Amino acid sequence: MVVETTRIPSDALQSFTSDVLVGFGVKREHADQVAEVLVASDVQGIDSHGVPRLKMYTDRLRDGLVNLDPKMTVITETAATLALDADNGMGHPASIEAMNRCIAKAKETGLCMTTVRNSNHFGIAGYYAAMALEHGLCGVAMTNATPLVVPTGAKRAYLSTAPIAAAIPAGKEKPILLDAATSTVAWGKIEIAQRENKPIPAGWAVDADGNITTDPNQAVALTPLGGARETSGQKGFGLGLWIEMLCGQLASGPWGAHVKGSRDEVPGPTRTGHAFMAWRIDAFTSEDDFKAGIDRMIQEIKSLETVDGVDRVMIPGEPEYEAEADRRANGIPVHPVVVEQIRMIGREVGVEAPF
Amino acid sequence: MVVETTRIPSDALQSFTSDVLVGFGVKREHADQVAEVLVASDVQGIDSHGVPRLKMYTDRLRDGLVNLDPKMTVITETAATLALDADNGMGHPASIEAMNRCIAKAKETGLCMTTVRNSNHFGIAGYYAAMALEHGLCGVAMTNATPLVVPTGAKRAYLSTAPIAAAIPAGKEKPILLDAATSTVAWGKIEIAQRENKPIPAGWAVDADGNITTDPNQAVALTPLGGARETSGQKGFGLGLWIEMLCGQLASGPWGAHVKGSRDEVPGPTRTGHAFMAWRIDAFTSEDDFKAGIDRMIQEIKSLETVDGVDRVMIPGEPEYEAEADRRANGIPVHPVVVEQIRMIGREVGVEAPF
Repeated sequence: MVVETTRIPSDALQSFTSDVLVGFGVKREHADQVAEVLVASDVQGIDSHGVPRLKMYTDRLRDGLVNLDPKMTVITETAATLALDADNGMGHPASIEAMNRCIAKAKETGLCMTTVRNSNHFGIAGYYAAMALEHGLCGVAMTNATPLVVPTGAKRAYLSTAPIAAAIPAGKEKPILLDAATSTVAWGKIEIAQRENKPIPAGWAVDADGNITTDPNQAVALTPLGGARETSGQKGFGLGLWIEMLCGQLASGPWGAHVKGSRDEVPGPTRTGHAFMAWRIDAFTSEDDFKAGIDRMIQEIKSLETVDGVDRVMIPGEPEYEAEADRRANGIPVHPVVVEQIRMIGREVGVEAPF
Repeated sequence: MVVETTRIPSDALQSFTSDVLVGFGVKREHADQVAEVLVASDVQGIDSHGVPRLKMYTDRLRDGLVNLDPKMTVITETAATLALDADNGMGHPASIEAMNRCIAKAKETGLCMTTVRNSNHFGIAGYYAAMALEHGLCGVAMTNATPLVVPTGAKRAYLSTAPIAAAIPAGKEKPILLDAATSTVAWGKIEIAQRENKPIPAGWAVDADGNITTDPNQAVALTPLGGARETSGQKGFGLGLWIEMLCGQLASGPWGAHVKGSRDEVPGPTRTGHAFMAWRIDAFTSEDDFKAGIDRMIQEIKSLETVDGVDRVMIPGEPEYEAEADRRANGIPVHPVVVEQIRMIGREVGVEAPF
């Protein structure tokens, strides 16, 4: 059965999302920031992290699990490091503020790493990494979340998908923007397969016994990047552990297994942690040479001969730039199930969808 | 045919390796450092990066491609950043010096990132990351090298295996030590399969047409971590690009495709680049809490129920600690082909192997 997908203008989707969040008690400034990050995700074609997640956020707001008037505080600070406490506010405004502070310190010192504890789900990591680009800096963003990834050889999830995003300024070319979970895929891709009722490739996920499954409805956990041990799944596991450490123990908070989420029997603040980095290119080298080198690398990779059946080699960020060009012009395709779901959420707080 | 493998005491292997390097004109202090890193690799069971690589190093020394009397210089420096030029010296002494300087600055400032250009192959990245542990710091080490990894969708190699190593201090448990190429496997694993004449798993490597091969002798390039696009090889490609940038453009030097190696028709200095990081835990959080959290994470992961056919879940670094306990006590198993090869290299400079 072919399902008709609605195209919604990004502006309409963004203002609706902000209005709904305000309806749930979020301050307008914060609601605008959350809506901006969510719709940026949809615009870039990362459907797994956009407005389809609105239900997850409003469920937690309805249950009073998020602080609507958070005061971000500094735990400790040096010239190049900053540890923040987000006071259980929404993850997106907390992360925008943390990355802005990280950028300001990096501009001053050359390099900064910033951790955040007591935060919540922050959407796409790439949004925050890319903030560094506006200042000519390199940026990195990482987060933990609820456990979804099986350590290589284990039956059950222990780590979160522990994504890392990295933004690299270019000269004439568009910046390189990597945004990758350290699981084989993001959980959102399983949810999309569930919504579309399609099988998933072997190697993405495991069932309740820890065995690989192709049925998205049987999937309970993800494999680390690399998949099985034979194909080096333990590397994805190790990278995930490293990111969990930065966003967990180093941030003075819990890591994957102990981050709360919607699956927990006793609900509570998620206590999500993030880590951000930014550095000035001219703290290391000539900015012009750096950018010319990045341009050359991009151009050389794009001109590589492709294997049979592949049109061209894509640079990290390129699929997102192409989706953005299409979706800013033609609207964001949203699955009818999601459209109906967010309309209902809006009605709950008296906000009528303009679509 | 079963091949008899010789066990060589690590001390004997290390002093022999140092003597051979001195025979090729390397200063004793540097030769000791190279030998220490190579034998550390063998001791930890990372056979792909130990003395079997001695031929690669001595070939370059014989051809006069490495500076025997390098003077490391500072390109630029801030409180938290340091960019060094290794003056085409051997990679191991250059990296030990760079990591020591990175550690010293991190102790002062809280965090430091250090790049190195005009260096050479440095062996195992994990050695340098682990140096931070002796000072109670977290450490990271990365390098580029000659191109060996195909960007997702391309026919030929463009990136190096761009490894990243990360060391995380623990309390009562042993430190977590991740050392992972961003390719599915290290090229050394293909070489081992070639030496042992065994097929390789599908997904590790591609042949001259860019197609997956299981014949190690047909393999000319590696896949990025994740393998094919369906299993997210583009993530390993993206992580590799990021590491190439740090060790290449940011370090004021070339990246994978332009790093020279033994495969080049016109030989020259490799112009290898590295990047190192170190940070003080107490710049972010309480050291005691951090270490207790790492211990708890290790203990919880090790106590997870395993999937059928797997004895236990291994923490990154654990296989290396176990190999080390065995090999320090019982000697390092070295393949007879390698034993004969390094004996011959020794004889070339008048150094007789004591094994």
